[in-house]
Amino acid sequence: MSQQNSVGIVAPQRAHFNEPIALKSGALLPGFELVFETYGTMNTARSNAVLVCHALSGGHHVAGVDASDPTNVGWWDNLVGPGKPLDTDKFFVVGVNNLGGCYGSTGPLSVNPITGKRYGADFPMVTVEDWVAAHARLADHLGIDTWAAVIGGSLGGMQALEWALQYPDRIRHAMVIASAPKLSAQNIAFNEVARQAILSDPDFHGGHYAEHGVVPVHGLRLARMVAHITYLSDSQMGEKFGRQLRHGEHKFSFDVDFEVESYLRYQGDKFASFFDANTYLNTTKALDYFDPAYAYDGDLAAALARAKAKFFVASFSTDWRFSPARSREIVFALLHNRRHVAYAEIDSDAGHDSFLLDDAYYHAVLRAYLENISV
Amino acid sequence: MSQQNSVGIVAPQRAHFNEPIALKSGALLPGFELVFETYGTMNTARSNAVLVCHALSGGHHVAGVDASDPTNVGWWDNLVGPGKPLDTDKFFVVGVNNLGGCYGSTGPLSVNPITGKRYGADFPMVTVEDWVAAHARLADHLGIDTWAAVIGGSLGGMQALEWALQYPDRIRHAMVIASAPKLSAQNIAFNEVARQAILSDPDFHGGHYAEHGVVPVHGLRLARMVAHITYLSDSQMGEKFGRQLRHGEHKFSFDVDFEVESYLRYQGDKFASFFDANTYLNTTKALDYFDPAYAYDGDLAAALARAKAKFFVASFSTDWRFSPARSREIVFALLHNRRHVAYAEIDSDAGHDSFLLDDAYYHAVLRAYLENISV
Repeated sequence: MSQQNSVGIVAPQRAHFNEPIALKSGALLPGFELVFETYGTMNTARSNAVLVCHALSGGHHVAGVDASDPTNVGWWDNLVGPGKPLDTDKFFVVGVNNLGGCYGSTGPLSVNPITGKRYGADFPMVTVEDWVAAHARLADHLGIDTWAAVIGGSLGGMQALEWALQYPDRIRHAMVIASAPKLSAQNIAFNEVARQAILSDPDFHGGHYAEHGVVPVHGLRLARMVAHITYLSDSQMGEKFGRQLRHGEHKFSFDVDFEVESYLRYQGDKFASFFDANTYLNTTKALDYFDPAYAYDGDLAAALARAKAKFFVASFSTDWRFSPARSREIVFALLHNRRHVAYAEIDSDAGHDSFLLDDAYYHAVLRAYLENISV
Repeated sequence: MSQQNSVGIVAPQRAHFNEPIALKSGALLPGFELVFETYGTMNTARSNAVLVCHALSGGHHVAGVDASDPTNVGWWDNLVGPGKPLDTDKFFVVGVNNLGGCYGSTGPLSVNPITGKRYGADFPMVTVEDWVAAHARLADHLGIDTWAAVIGGSLGGMQALEWALQYPDRIRHAMVIASAPKLSAQNIAFNEVARQAILSDPDFHGGHYAEHGVVPVHGLRLARMVAHITYLSDSQMGEKFGRQLRHGEHKFSFDVDFEVESYLRYQGDKFASFFDANTYLNTTKALDYFDPAYAYDGDLAAALARAKAKFFVASFSTDWRFSPARSREIVFALLHNRRHVAYAEIDSDAGHDSFLLDDAYYHAVLRAYLENISV
């Protein structure tokens, strides 16, 4: 991270919402809290606010250095800051941990006011639509009538798209990156393996592991390992690890032989040490369920007809989780509706994770688009 | 199965080998047994024998109906039988369960003569090279000096390739289908997730689950689920399941929502009910380790220089586990050595599993090649 382009030290803020929220599942949540961060300054016209939506493992800490932990740099710090593509000298940027998350917003780790114990598995299932409804409450709280832009990658891109559908008059630009209008059967299959890994871990205890003083680390670790394979491209894995041996020879045991095994175990262990299993389960379901065309007999163009925002859509050549073809579905459906849409298909070797990386061409395209947004 | 083209009811045979076998790991196995089946009749010149090598979950029961279980039809019955592409009116066909397998050959489920208990995790790790060395003993036992052909798909194809390298004078045709000269980093990564699922199952007990009267079914189930995703193509999964809902609506729970989830769970449960976890672990390692070019600084052409057999290589367009590009590596290395090689790249929607299916074009190509083998 370049220190001079950093938003610097940031501290999370909290907003409490007393109004109950009716969730898509039919459940009613009696009030909730969201934890969020802001970078830059709201202008007097309140026309420069940008919402950054996070993907599966991300949170509200988008940019800068966490005031309580100097090693904790925001997950999209390469994008957000003074002079960076999402320029905090121009925009007022908001990062928020989604409802049901595990970084401080109300979720499975929160105490259920009715029982006095953590919600755990009793926390109601939330969807992409519910997240956007909750974000809208945060916009109200911050005095933001209309976002200049809502931006996100992967699951974050689905939220940007859903913003344009649920609140067409409150968003001027929807920026949907490395995303898809719905999961494929293969996408769902990978999510299901991850869920089964968690659900079948004896330490899961039906989602009430907190009461047993344990965490289903084995299941979470496996879930992250299998998901991680889908975040990288085959070619990048080949270049990064190939068949490189850890100890220079075959061990004929189940210890690490190949570097890629060591890498995956490390990623799994790290993730299992901080992420909440119930949030993981719910988030994969939110991904599976997202399908704006579902209510339109699968007709995506019909589903997107109500969007009024201008769109920026981007995909990455080696992303096999949400391939460029999935982004093109969104582009075609928008064009069918005569919507403004800019589409960039970016050559990158880094697979799905490309959206998080500091690729020069990718960032140049984002910078150009964001510079053209009037505030 | 067409009854008139079946080899009919078959019973397994056993061969015992008293000579110790030195394994690639350095371990010495003091004698072993192989279970096998044969179809057709050996000709007097003993020139019509074909060895069928199995992949991860296959075994010796290649064709016909198991004498002890009328529902148990051989895994490649669509290929092997009178008048079928691998014609038992012409060829004497041998199917064998690999050493270390779990269908009757000596393996982790066998009793260790030294301890009087099942080997379990103490069974030494076997490799593709070890399997071929053990097959050679079976060839000796059957009085087969030279195979007319050795044929296999996936891991079975690696054994056919290895036969041509280890015993270049004992194989006339190597038929390598849906295979690869070595696993990629991504291939190894998927295997590693499967292994970690088994190894971290509390019922695994370091591989000595038999002594505890349990089986690591959760781990085996997860291993099979993730592997199964890689056996099917994205497009086939989409056509077969799409986003079809099991109950016509989103359940907002972790029960089955989508048909693909139900399918994967079924496949996982079925596999975990009969396959041995230690055999699974070893077999994935045999896959990871296979790399004939390893001793030649990665030069596959140099590694294949000692092969004398003629080759048939086939791949399938939607196979992303072992893509056509991996088969082409074998073809190019053989051509570099001026070897005879027939290569078929077959259009199929069924991904890696295509090699098991009764595709008309695929079977026509196999039939033509096999008809041209003189006996």
